[in-house]
Amino acid sequence: MSDLTRLSLRTLRRLMISGEVRPEDVVAAFLVRAEARNSRDLSYISIGAEEALACAGRVEQAGTSGRLAGIPFSCKDVFDTVTLPTTAGSRAMQDYRPARDAQALARLRVSGAILLGKNNLHEFCYGITGANPTFGTPANPHDRHRLAGGSSSGSAVAVTNRTAMFALGTDTGGSVRVPASLCGLVGFKPTRGQISLKGVVPFCWSLDHAGILTRSCGDAADVFLAVREAQQAVSGANADHSERGNSLHGLRIGVPRGAYLDNAASDIAASVHHLIAECRRLGAQIVDVVMPDDTHVRTASLAVQLVEAFAWHRTNLQRRFDLYGEDVREGLLQGQFILAEHYVQALRLIAVKQAEVSELLKDVDVLMTPTTPVVAPPLDQKQVTLAGVVVPIGNALSHFTCLFNLTGHPALTVPIGRNGDGLPMGMQLIGKHYRDMKLLAIGAALERVGLAGWIEPNDEMDDSPGMPPPLAERRELYAH
Amino acid sequence: MSDLTRLSLRTLRRLMISGEVRPEDVVAAFLVRAEARNSRDLSYISIGAEEALACAGRVEQAGTSGRLAGIPFSCKDVFDTVTLPTTAGSRAMQDYRPARDAQALARLRVSGAILLGKNNLHEFCYGITGANPTFGTPANPHDRHRLAGGSSSGSAVAVTNRTAMFALGTDTGGSVRVPASLCGLVGFKPTRGQISLKGVVPFCWSLDHAGILTRSCGDAADVFLAVREAQQAVSGANADHSERGNSLHGLRIGVPRGAYLDNAASDIAASVHHLIAECRRLGAQIVDVVMPDDTHVRTASLAVQLVEAFAWHRTNLQRRFDLYGEDVREGLLQGQFILAEHYVQALRLIAVKQAEVSELLKDVDVLMTPTTPVVAPPLDQKQVTLAGVVVPIGNALSHFTCLFNLTGHPALTVPIGRNGDGLPMGMQLIGKHYRDMKLLAIGAALERVGLAGWIEPNDEMDDSPGMPPPLAERRELYAH
Repeated sequence: MSDLTRLSLRTLRRLMISGEVRPEDVVAAFLVRAEARNSRDLSYISIGAEEALACAGRVEQAGTSGRLAGIPFSCKDVFDTVTLPTTAGSRAMQDYRPARDAQALARLRVSGAILLGKNNLHEFCYGITGANPTFGTPANPHDRHRLAGGSSSGSAVAVTNRTAMFALGTDTGGSVRVPASLCGLVGFKPTRGQISLKGVVPFCWSLDHAGILTRSCGDAADVFLAVREAQQAVSGANADHSERGNSLHGLRIGVPRGAYLDNAASDIAASVHHLIAECRRLGAQIVDVVMPDDTHVRTASLAVQLVEAFAWHRTNLQRRFDLYGEDVREGLLQGQFILAEHYVQALRLIAVKQAEVSELLKDVDVLMTPTTPVVAPPLDQKQVTLAGVVVPIGNALSHFTCLFNLTGHPALTVPIGRNGDGLPMGMQLIGKHYRDMKLLAIGAALERVGLAGWIEPNDEMDDSPGMPPPLAERRELYAH
Repeated sequence: MSDLTRLSLRTLRRLMISGEVRPEDVVAAFLVRAEARNSRDLSYISIGAEEALACAGRVEQAGTSGRLAGIPFSCKDVFDTVTLPTTAGSRAMQDYRPARDAQALARLRVSGAILLGKNNLHEFCYGITGANPTFGTPANPHDRHRLAGGSSSGSAVAVTNRTAMFALGTDTGGSVRVPASLCGLVGFKPTRGQISLKGVVPFCWSLDHAGILTRSCGDAADVFLAVREAQQAVSGANADHSERGNSLHGLRIGVPRGAYLDNAASDIAASVHHLIAECRRLGAQIVDVVMPDDTHVRTASLAVQLVEAFAWHRTNLQRRFDLYGEDVREGLLQGQFILAEHYVQALRLIAVKQAEVSELLKDVDVLMTPTTPVVAPPLDQKQVTLAGVVVPIGNALSHFTCLFNLTGHPALTVPIGRNGDGLPMGMQLIGKHYRDMKLLAIGAALERVGLAGWIEPNDEMDDSPGMPPPLAERRELYAH
């Protein structure tokens, strides 16, 4: 049997259903990799090997009919779990003991998916770089001197290094899509509310979304169908994302002129231009669109984030001030001075932007933009120049993604190839509300015609060591 | 033909369908009363007689199959209209020209209902007494020296004086239920969102509800079915509110002990106690319930109101400061100092209260409380003593109603008789989310067994003159 971790989700499922492979074999294959690599790639904060193997045994006994039966996965360490600690990437949660698993995990368990462990992240999701002074900063598997991106850093690294078949993350401004793009993966943020956030440590509930990281759109579709909130309206749920054929005929793609492509680095802009031309050649209609004025979008997003995050952390900040990372703590404290009127005006602006983007999407099936304006930056990079303007690296990375947290539209990043330095580039597709499956089908079509697809790290066994925390501190934390 | 304005909505509909009465006759009957009484009862800010009669003609031509075809109604002057001014009861809206009618009015037009005019209100809905320095303060038709209540003051007076068959109002803390109760009417605030607020001048969008004022629960049910948002889930929409029989068998009524009855004036408490005993005698089960801790409920409500109202008025306040009533202006300005954290914590408290009340309602069909702790207060009353504590009259009047704006549950007031001074008393029924029709059916059952029912003013022709504004100012306003 070839390396099980290289197979697609559907192939693995087929092999388990036919009995050629046992769930224990699959789980063990991923677990062995996870345990071997974690001290270097820092992708997991905790691994529940025994529990995962026991689950695999139960799945085998119960039969493998669940949609994800026997499929091993990991989740960002903000999803509540009863058997493993839930740290949110911070020492400040050390007494936190949730009474039940997050609803999304419960759904996945019903589908037969098997949780291997919980992924490292930017502390409390409060940043897009993935920097974490407590649990270490995962490096990018494509280049150990570069960031994996965040805040779902460990989730991206786990899927990239095949130590999980898929991972759940959260995305408040790009925290699933950005690390997925920087690591050469598919990252999917469904329509707001389609994946439950019940039992997830919040960052900012007006903008938080749960999301999925995988190696392909087909994998993402299978996971989405298993994890989504069944009671929600889902249009196009039966769109067949495995449809054959090399045509994109009938697809209407909106391409925002100006800001998006002009603000991307030249190699990314060139790749996206090329890809758009290819889509046209394959029958898609390319429609120029003018995006809504984004003058105050980042301010509104920040105002809402600062206020809600502070409101949630306030009590804990008072009690455990010293346990918060300094950067995160200083950021959180800014939330205390914002006036209610400004918060409310931010929410009103968000409602307007949502309507404006929905209006744009009436005329096209999907909007296409680069996912990030730059490829994975060096670990210590603090700022970057976009179209002649110096921008903090965090703002730059979420430049193209954060609007769609405000509007709640489903947004997907697909890997579209490497730049001259061999680093992955991603393209973002934005769909209509609740047309999540349609969006994944479009992503799958791009994979099918060879315009998008997983970018495997060149030197797998290197596993790109990140920046670990001091050893003593780490040992203490694992005793948790 | 007897006085058409005395008939029930269904009887009027039957007479129009059979051709015994023409829509023009019905509209004319109400219009004549409205125009004759308005200079004294101050219930209308504007009357569109010509347009109403033209509508009646069109309804007759088109056929009377719409659910409310030919039924004349009025609305609080916060619902946008293209043909009549929309003042929100303030001089500060003098340049406001909405481009289309409010969605609720559009729905009613489709059902064949005919708008007669727009009702007086507490300026910008910013108060529960109905006091209005610009358009005058409507007096209570049951006693000219007392308040009609607000903020939907004119809507209550119009239905009481039979110058409209029904009226639309809005209710942010009790603004439909309180004036309905003080005037001896049925007042219905459906589940949040069930009647559209699109095209309605907001007070506080987190708590605003549209509502219906009628003389009976049957009338309210017919209006609700015509005006509600069709795409919203409605359980029990087919509950037959005209069901016959004198039994309340199987009905589970939750009665909050402590605060609610203890804080009501003795005559109101005695009536509610009597009514509850009668319900038990007729087969209902009475269940003692303990209401959620309400320590911070009013603070949360106020924080949300002040912030959202200020956010909405800010630009207009800067431009037209002098056109706002002094009281309203001073109130609005308080909103500018509230911190976002406090607003957000208020919203979080509200979410908790909503869950707690929903939990209570799992065990009963309906909660019963007095609607107001006191009957209609004298026009100049500023405060009242409740259970030994002196309370501003505004807080007192909304004491039992405002919680259910926070929780979004449907709430209904039904008239339950007069106190020793001949003044109407009301009882509030609170139902489960989206069980709006079930709630109206329970109200109708109470009417059927004689425990509730419209309280007609003793001296109709008196029409209880209110406190009019200076004549010169009024003339200028009508030129609008």
